Amino acid sequence: MSFEEIEAIGICDWNKLEPKRFTYKPQYLRPYDVDVKIIACGICGSDIHCIKGHYGKPFLPLAVGHEIVGYIVGMGAEVDKKKFAIGDRVGVGPECDSCGKCWRCEHGIENNCEQMVTTFHGTYPSGVHSQGGYANYVRVNNKFAFRIPDDLDTISAAPLMCGGITGYRPLLTAGVKKGTKVGVSGIGGIGHMTILFAKALGAEVTAISRNDKKREIAKKLGADHYVSMEDAKFPSEFKNSLDVIVNTASSFSEGRVKSVMSMMRPYGKFIFVTAPGAGQKLELDPGFMILGSYSVSGSAAGSPEEIDGMLQLAAAKQIKPWVETLDINEKNVTQAWKRMEEGDVRFRFVLTGYDKCFGN
Amino acid sequence: MSFEEIEAIGICDWNKLEPKRFTYKPQYLRPYDVDVKIIACGICGSDIHCIKGHYGKPFLPLAVGHEIVGYIVGMGAEVDKKKFAIGDRVGVGPECDSCGKCWRCEHGIENNCEQMVTTFHGTYPSGVHSQGGYANYVRVNNKFAFRIPDDLDTISAAPLMCGGITGYRPLLTAGVKKGTKVGVSGIGGIGHMTILFAKALGAEVTAISRNDKKREIAKKLGADHYVSMEDAKFPSEFKNSLDVIVNTASSFSEGRVKSVMSMMRPYGKFIFVTAPGAGQKLELDPGFMILGSYSVSGSAAGSPEEIDGMLQLAAAKQIKPWVETLDINEKNVTQAWKRMEEGDVRFRFVLTGYDKCFGN
Repeated sequence: MSFEEIEAIGICDWNKLEPKRFTYKPQYLRPYDVDVKIIACGICGSDIHCIKGHYGKPFLPLAVGHEIVGYIVGMGAEVDKKKFAIGDRVGVGPECDSCGKCWRCEHGIENNCEQMVTTFHGTYPSGVHSQGGYANYVRVNNKFAFRIPDDLDTISAAPLMCGGITGYRPLLTAGVKKGTKVGVSGIGGIGHMTILFAKALGAEVTAISRNDKKREIAKKLGADHYVSMEDAKFPSEFKNSLDVIVNTASSFSEGRVKSVMSMMRPYGKFIFVTAPGAGQKLELDPGFMILGSYSVSGSAAGSPEEIDGMLQLAAAKQIKPWVETLDINEKNVTQAWKRMEEGDVRFRFVLTGYDKCFGN
Repeated sequence: MSFEEIEAIGICDWNKLEPKRFTYKPQYLRPYDVDVKIIACGICGSDIHCIKGHYGKPFLPLAVGHEIVGYIVGMGAEVDKKKFAIGDRVGVGPECDSCGKCWRCEHGIENNCEQMVTTFHGTYPSGVHSQGGYANYVRVNNKFAFRIPDDLDTISAAPLMCGGITGYRPLLTAGVKKGTKVGVSGIGGIGHMTILFAKALGAEVTAISRNDKKREIAKKLGADHYVSMEDAKFPSEFKNSLDVIVNTASSFSEGRVKSVMSMMRPYGKFIFVTAPGAGQKLELDPGFMILGSYSVSGSAAGSPEEIDGMLQLAAAKQIKPWVETLDINEKNVTQAWKRMEEGDVRFRFVLTGYDKCFGN
């Protein structure tokens, strides 16, 4: 292997969502970096947002992918040998580096570092761009590589690195435990993993969806209740039924948010994990918030400690996201992006077959 | 005394903010009601909003006032004789009745009951209107009368019944304790009491104000730090300095809220207790909320249990709101409302001298 030239699949033109092979030169190996040979990568909704330019168009070519699993094949001199060894199986999520100096980094909340470098679409202080997991290798700060427990299979672990932690962390910060009444709004990639984690924590889970289509699927995922927003009794007959709602839906229209929130008891926590399109605001009715003593919060992926904790829980409880695997190549990536846009996946694609594409 | 005719001072014309004497017939005595002879009433910001029609114009004449202290002079047959006796000194806040049947009432969160009757400007299920504490008597559900501890003087207790609990409850629900870094945004009636309570809980308190004018006052109130929003270093140099912000300011402009919120650490809780004008929304930037893992919540006065707890704490810690007393009469009420509108009070008016106005 050579880290002079990493092989990747990504977009080369913002106006053509055609994945093409290209090579890139990664950032130099810092003493605390690890090199990871990628064996699997989930396809996250962020991948689609990014290639469509919703996060800005800073550079090309650009390989996305931040639900990465692979083996450590190289390490900087200062990486703790008790933490990592060559050959360890690790996961990498949406963050590959942070400033390490701010209050947030110093307090273990690197996922909120304002100078973080995202695993793709980011730029290191050196000026080098970050590229994601649709590639044979990735080099990251070892703080953002996480050992995958032996009991957790690679295909299950990949989607956990972004979607999983994103859905799990709100449950953690809201103190969800046995008997907590949790609503999960939006039953898609993140939402289905949120249901799995909420059940693993012992919560009583209500799946909330726009219509009745996902009722059976929600049941199979383990949801105790299902609420269709098209139900004539929604939301009036479901009031005061939930302690916490994790909102994974993309719509932030005030009417939608308010009607879903009205299912909460006083002190209820409504936590959203996905941002709508750039510039779109979340509008709240202050009187409604006051009368319900409701809280609304945002949540960003997870801290290193939270990610480690999630992986342990997933291994212990054998949490398995519903995935469809595809060999990585230009044709399959094209197909997967198209189906993602159409919502035609139950519930996550995971790219595999890296050796077939990039060689061993 | 006669409960057939209660003497009050209020408005008789929505277009003239002139307090006039009038009499009204209260709701019949229900078995669980108590009759209170009023001896003091704080003037809350809500009084001004209400008389200006901001909460709607349902009936006239209308007496406001919901920071009431008085003596129990009558009780319905079912009032627990262990709880109350004739002659007990009690306080009444913004709520005088609730449905008693909903999930919220059944769980002791009557302050979030959607069928609550407000102490003034409300309508009982019987159709009778509620009238406030600018009057010689008030009749309320005994659940919303609170015994004032002997160690707490009447003048201090009155403003606690609305402004005090409104500022204290967010501290309670946010788990504020010794060392918690609390910001209080808006140093007025509610804000100054929030500072007093936060200090009583052992918090490190930062007063946040539009400009530098209240620096000395904030210090006298016990605030450890003062931040003027006109400071060139605001907010950049104050980031990650606060765990909790209680927002008592009336402006909900996105820019103001966001700049104040940016003083918070991740997981920071921004809790607002006042609603802006009808129809005004709170606009939040979802990306900002996610990056900071921030929460925004509303808080409504307090539950009966919380109000009792606050009064105990206030007595134990000798919390004394800064008040200016005025004898109740048409002239003084006119003057007080005018000065309230001009922000010319440090920090609360309390109406006294009820016997002089209404007879003994």
